[in-house]
Amino acid sequence: MKSDLDRLMQERGLDAIVVMGESRENHALNYLTRHAKITQGFVIKKRGDPAVLLCSSMERDEAAKSGLAVKTFADFGLPLLIKETGSLFEAQLRMLVAALEHYGIGGTVGFYGLGDPGQSFVMLTRLGEMLPVVTVTGETETTIFDAAYATKDAEEIEAIKSVAARTNTVMAEVVDFLKGCPVRDGHLFGHDGAPLTVGDVKRYLRARLFHHRLEDHGETIFAIGRDAGVPHSRGEDGDVLELGKSIIFDLFPRDIESGYYHDMTRTFCLGYAPPEVQRAYDEVMRAFETVIGALKVGEQAAYYQDLTCNVFEELGHKTPRSHPGTEEGYVHSVGHGIGLQIHARPRLGVASQDVIEPGQVFTVEPGLYYPQRGFGVRIEDTVYVDTDGAIHSLTPFPKDLVIPVA
Amino acid sequence: MKSDLDRLMQERGLDAIVVMGESRENHALNYLTRHAKITQGFVIKKRGDPAVLLCSSMERDEAAKSGLAVKTFADFGLPLLIKETGSLFEAQLRMLVAALEHYGIGGTVGFYGLGDPGQSFVMLTRLGEMLPVVTVTGETETTIFDAAYATKDAEEIEAIKSVAARTNTVMAEVVDFLKGCPVRDGHLFGHDGAPLTVGDVKRYLRARLFHHRLEDHGETIFAIGRDAGVPHSRGEDGDVLELGKSIIFDLFPRDIESGYYHDMTRTFCLGYAPPEVQRAYDEVMRAFETVIGALKVGEQAAYYQDLTCNVFEELGHKTPRSHPGTEEGYVHSVGHGIGLQIHARPRLGVASQDVIEPGQVFTVEPGLYYPQRGFGVRIEDTVYVDTDGAIHSLTPFPKDLVIPVA
Repeated sequence: MKSDLDRLMQERGLDAIVVMGESRENHALNYLTRHAKITQGFVIKKRGDPAVLLCSSMERDEAAKSGLAVKTFADFGLPLLIKETGSLFEAQLRMLVAALEHYGIGGTVGFYGLGDPGQSFVMLTRLGEMLPVVTVTGETETTIFDAAYATKDAEEIEAIKSVAARTNTVMAEVVDFLKGCPVRDGHLFGHDGAPLTVGDVKRYLRARLFHHRLEDHGETIFAIGRDAGVPHSRGEDGDVLELGKSIIFDLFPRDIESGYYHDMTRTFCLGYAPPEVQRAYDEVMRAFETVIGALKVGEQAAYYQDLTCNVFEELGHKTPRSHPGTEEGYVHSVGHGIGLQIHARPRLGVASQDVIEPGQVFTVEPGLYYPQRGFGVRIEDTVYVDTDGAIHSLTPFPKDLVIPVA
Repeated sequence: MKSDLDRLMQERGLDAIVVMGESRENHALNYLTRHAKITQGFVIKKRGDPAVLLCSSMERDEAAKSGLAVKTFADFGLPLLIKETGSLFEAQLRMLVAALEHYGIGGTVGFYGLGDPGQSFVMLTRLGEMLPVVTVTGETETTIFDAAYATKDAEEIEAIKSVAARTNTVMAEVVDFLKGCPVRDGHLFGHDGAPLTVGDVKRYLRARLFHHRLEDHGETIFAIGRDAGVPHSRGEDGDVLELGKSIIFDLFPRDIESGYYHDMTRTFCLGYAPPEVQRAYDEVMRAFETVIGALKVGEQAAYYQDLTCNVFEELGHKTPRSHPGTEEGYVHSVGHGIGLQIHARPRLGVASQDVIEPGQVFTVEPGLYYPQRGFGVRIEDTVYVDTDGAIHSLTPFPKDLVIPVA
């Protein structure tokens, strides 16, 4: 959690950190500024000292809501530097150097945030040359932010519970909507008499998300039949809702205010489930319950991917362990942390170095995919580990394969 | 426009480009993939050759919608590399090296997209060491993408006109909503009998944006009184709508499907305008009309900032030219290009190297800010320059300061 940052900096030999870039999707910046509505900024933090936020003077009011000490770009001479250099890049670089000097930053400094990779490469190479007391570095695996994000403090858990409850409600609303649609010729119809399509469902879904102050970036997966067999296929707007086809409904919206996510998946068949889908469903449920039942603090997160592969391989399915790169059978990892990012630590997958700890919030989501046979199945809950190490599901929505239709 | 990329690469001595990172807010990636709904990817383009998109095999269907040739991470060995190295970063780096070798990439290679700055620094430093035939570079000012974005092709202009028309409609809907509210004690009331607040207006606004398939990321500015005097203050949800106060309503939503923006600002007073606001409004309109009247192909974009400063300084206001860093008077640039980004080329500001050209779409937005005196004024249209060099406003919404109330 956020209060771990000084300890993490100490452990990794970081004397200071700089978080930079525009704010949209800039998780590290938003984490430190509590989602203050600024366009861009630099947060400078010397180990042991409070962080300082540099931003445009036009955004000083919004920046103040971060709770951080705020300085403006003008405080470090940006307008004059632009005039002198005729270059925004050059001026921003010199301004940053001036600010680092002002705060007495030296030693090993880690850079984070979001930016154009080539520009970052040039900027940090230059910065290292201009400030010989600074050794520029970046972290390439679990950064101090990834490590801090992995466990949530009480304020974050409250925000996550709120988005979880609303996401479960939205899924219930969409399922009720489907239940209420007339059936003819083996598929659903809208109340306007036209065949109901995936696009219609997504329009209804978006209205409900909006009502509950959630946003899905148009990325919700509602994929039927063969598309359900391709894990990240979002579904085709023109597809009609045929009875007896597997539908993967993977809903992972973000709270518009707090920026926190929930992530849940259910697989449905309208009216009835064909035997092979029912069998795959039962097998996925077996893997799901095996993993959930085995979750405990102190265990390697990678172990749960092994456990999932054990279950599926024993049942005769290909897995990424038995057939690296397979596109049928079980084809992904069994879970991932969530927070201000949809994919965070811990990673419950191969090569993960993470360990299950109190304060974590992560998904458990085994699945089986057979695009050639026209179906896929995935079940996903988000769970959190409380301070006593007990595991709680944040996804109470029922796990029924068949949605009864009229 | 997109078809300029090969020429731009040639002019800047780039033998190839690589665009990388997650897709959200990754303008360069989304530009090349036509907003394909993939989580992350690498686009590799050798000068003169078509671009290739590398993505997860799980996302191959969505990736195919880009119209680019698609290869999967597995095609370049990612699953095995993860197994071998035990490191996602290391595996991705080696995969990228393998892909660059496969496509025979050498010479000067520019890197673009979005990523963690420190990680990009480490990754590109390593990549340069691993692939001595490649000289890693980044562009720090107007990148080839910035240059390409600056002018729009016919498909983009259509998308931009569509979002412009809907944005104007939303502003009209919000103004009609305000006109219809009862007045008592010098401020507006909702139909529920409670004082109408900025938060209420924003809720109504969001519903209208949603209806028109637009999103504002909660960033619309609707700021009254003193807050209108701080250009990027978003407005306070709890503020009531007093008559006779200046309201800056800066609406810059993005189309959910195409990703293109519109940007427009109107300043309003409910019921009546105090003389000092009316005077400032007339002065801003004078600057606005001066700039609009002077726009022509071939002119330096920076000239329009000078022109704006001329007008305001003659009227006795501070400007960034006369008082760098000033927080009152005229305090920003007079315009910026828009497209898949809210801020793109051309920049109509000091130190801009841009020139007005056919195909550009940009804002014209002079303003005056007096937070201590409790008001601010800004007027903003978006214009585009057609292939014949004629200037067209995309913001027909009327420019009336006073909104009559009941």
